[in-house]
Amino acid sequence: MSDSNPPFFPVPGVRLASTAAAIRYQERDDLLVLELRPGSVCAAVFTRNAFCAAPVTLARHHLAQCAPRYLLINAGNANAGTGRQGLAAAHASCEALADLADCRAEQVLPFSTGVIGEHLPVERIASALPTALKRLDAAAWPDAARAIMTTDTVPKLRSQRFLLNGQQATVTGIAKGAGMICPDMATMLAFLATDVAIAPELLQHCLQSAADRSFNSITVDGDTSTNDACVLVATGALGNPAVTDAASAEYTAVLSAVETVCTDLATAIVRDAEGATKLVTVEVEEARDHAEARNVAYTVAHSPLVKTALFASDPNWGRILAAVGRAGIDELDIEGVHIDLGDVRIVEAGARASSYTETLGAAVMAKPEILIRILLGRGNAQTRVLTCDFSYDYVRINAEYRS
Amino acid sequence: MSDSNPPFFPVPGVRLASTAAAIRYQERDDLLVLELRPGSVCAAVFTRNAFCAAPVTLARHHLAQCAPRYLLINAGNANAGTGRQGLAAAHASCEALADLADCRAEQVLPFSTGVIGEHLPVERIASALPTALKRLDAAAWPDAARAIMTTDTVPKLRSQRFLLNGQQATVTGIAKGAGMICPDMATMLAFLATDVAIAPELLQHCLQSAADRSFNSITVDGDTSTNDACVLVATGALGNPAVTDAASAEYTAVLSAVETVCTDLATAIVRDAEGATKLVTVEVEEARDHAEARNVAYTVAHSPLVKTALFASDPNWGRILAAVGRAGIDELDIEGVHIDLGDVRIVEAGARASSYTETLGAAVMAKPEILIRILLGRGNAQTRVLTCDFSYDYVRINAEYRS
Repeated sequence: MSDSNPPFFPVPGVRLASTAAAIRYQERDDLLVLELRPGSVCAAVFTRNAFCAAPVTLARHHLAQCAPRYLLINAGNANAGTGRQGLAAAHASCEALADLADCRAEQVLPFSTGVIGEHLPVERIASALPTALKRLDAAAWPDAARAIMTTDTVPKLRSQRFLLNGQQATVTGIAKGAGMICPDMATMLAFLATDVAIAPELLQHCLQSAADRSFNSITVDGDTSTNDACVLVATGALGNPAVTDAASAEYTAVLSAVETVCTDLATAIVRDAEGATKLVTVEVEEARDHAEARNVAYTVAHSPLVKTALFASDPNWGRILAAVGRAGIDELDIEGVHIDLGDVRIVEAGARASSYTETLGAAVMAKPEILIRILLGRGNAQTRVLTCDFSYDYVRINAEYRS
Repeated sequence: MSDSNPPFFPVPGVRLASTAAAIRYQERDDLLVLELRPGSVCAAVFTRNAFCAAPVTLARHHLAQCAPRYLLINAGNANAGTGRQGLAAAHASCEALADLADCRAEQVLPFSTGVIGEHLPVERIASALPTALKRLDAAAWPDAARAIMTTDTVPKLRSQRFLLNGQQATVTGIAKGAGMICPDMATMLAFLATDVAIAPELLQHCLQSAADRSFNSITVDGDTSTNDACVLVATGALGNPAVTDAASAEYTAVLSAVETVCTDLATAIVRDAEGATKLVTVEVEEARDHAEARNVAYTVAHSPLVKTALFASDPNWGRILAAVGRAGIDELDIEGVHIDLGDVRIVEAGARASSYTETLGAAVMAKPEILIRILLGRGNAQTRVLTCDFSYDYVRINAEYRS
């Protein structure tokens, strides 16, 4: 791979193939097939957007019926806002793959990312599938990461090895830009696989908790997409006795590896957010409860005024203060609030810190990675959200994209 | 006035004076005094930001004690995030005016707008007050509108005359840019006055309901300021029997005139939002309740993706659809959702309207004023929010302002 992705490990039980179907792009792969070993189990989390795309509806439906054998992913067309015709198109593409692979259409999970509201060219997908199936290869992860890109500038592939009862186990995953910069072309999709054997309900729990701490803790502009999905497959090819106990050391090991891959992919997504020039972590501590902490963190992370100040490297701490103040915290005692920018205290007891100087603030703001730490002084709950700044390029990319 | 404000009418019982105090700006007026006739009653609504500025705290406190005789407003320094020292400074400036005007400090309401976190130069305000008091003039509304400007590009002054029991009554008001573009310099302040006599609790009701439909229904970027305030004075100089009945025709006449002035001023604020190139109205209808309607309207109005598409005149209706979908509506049946862009139906029963073409959409989006109408198909509640687009200039102004 031409980018800076670390080395990866294939996942026994998974083969991948990408190919060019000319769905929207020319001269690049835009169709990806993942083949899963029989007996694989599959967990998934989907967008909560009420206007979820046809493939999301169908993938949920198929997952409820049987264990999948194939994932079918296309870039360039989201098949969203397409009504019943879109649902029929998603189903037809699953059927096309099932016919070739000799399985049931319900054993195929469809995923799409791209422009909203245009009809999916099913024939082009169907025509490209025979080539894809001939290419299936356990080592094709880098090509797979590239095939699902839309406005991403680098492919995103991460891999972890860990010991499970003395055996070497693997988690590998790919992701593409989140529904945050340009969600009609940049839905967040992530596909992870591990070779461990694990009970389906535990796999779902593992994915949900890893996603909450990674993909669900990043934001660029607060817009969530119609197509966001994250899938975790466990092939069982490792041959371990299935992990069934959430309190076991084995489960902890799996969860930790999955969380690491998810967090690395999520961070890569924020770094690659178009127009982003800074990686910003917003930490909220001493909140009364988790919901309050999240609310404050997201209010700050979504504030266009905070984000433009970050772009300008302007230590305009009044904007952070004002964002905290409008987060709707019940009976906030502002004298309990402290705010740090990196290692510089900017707000002390609700007012400008006596030790603060513009020079100190400017030095922190000039860095490419910035930590905003907000202490609310009213409890023990905390949270962390990753975001980026708002630049001219954010407006340019989002204003000019379809033109 | 050099701008396009319509003709205005002085309000009997109110005299105004502005002067240059060099608080932040040079060679322009930045201090405003409003003198109210004895017996005037005063209503006010303030920011809900927990980090409200010192003048907001003090004005609330003073209002609770007695009827004000003076409003004292400065531009260039918000006196926010300044802790107890800020409160002392606000109090000292009220005292300075009270000493000169021979009233109590509690009879002065202070208001500030400008940079957050810098200490208010009370001495400069005190030194400028004698000049201001000598200039008090019932016709000085245009100068007053100019003196409170910060990043505003035009002063905002609106006036209405109406009949009250056969007498000619007046409502006149000024406003400055809302806490939306650059709230550390662009707090929303509005000061209105009428010559009618009206019971204090009815005046408060009138202001609250007019503000909800005007200043509280505009948004540029969702950031609310530490200093926002809106004041309505009733001098009683008209000599009418005081309006005391909320069901009377007299109250309806007053409310209607106040609402008109507030709405005109609020619209002027959105038009003047820095970087704004379009005036956008988001109407939500057929919601289950008012809260639901507001939630959808604000989610669409705050979406950076919708706003950059509006700037680009790109009929990217998928972004509007996605914003509605993530507004968190309980059990939304997407087949009940219809969306219009001006007179073009873009979404029909939750999917792209069959009659829609890009040409139709592009024609609507090219206009300087755009209506987005969202029908939820689940009730009778409705709301309307005014906003603008996000342009390169939004980022430029907010990134470069303090540099």
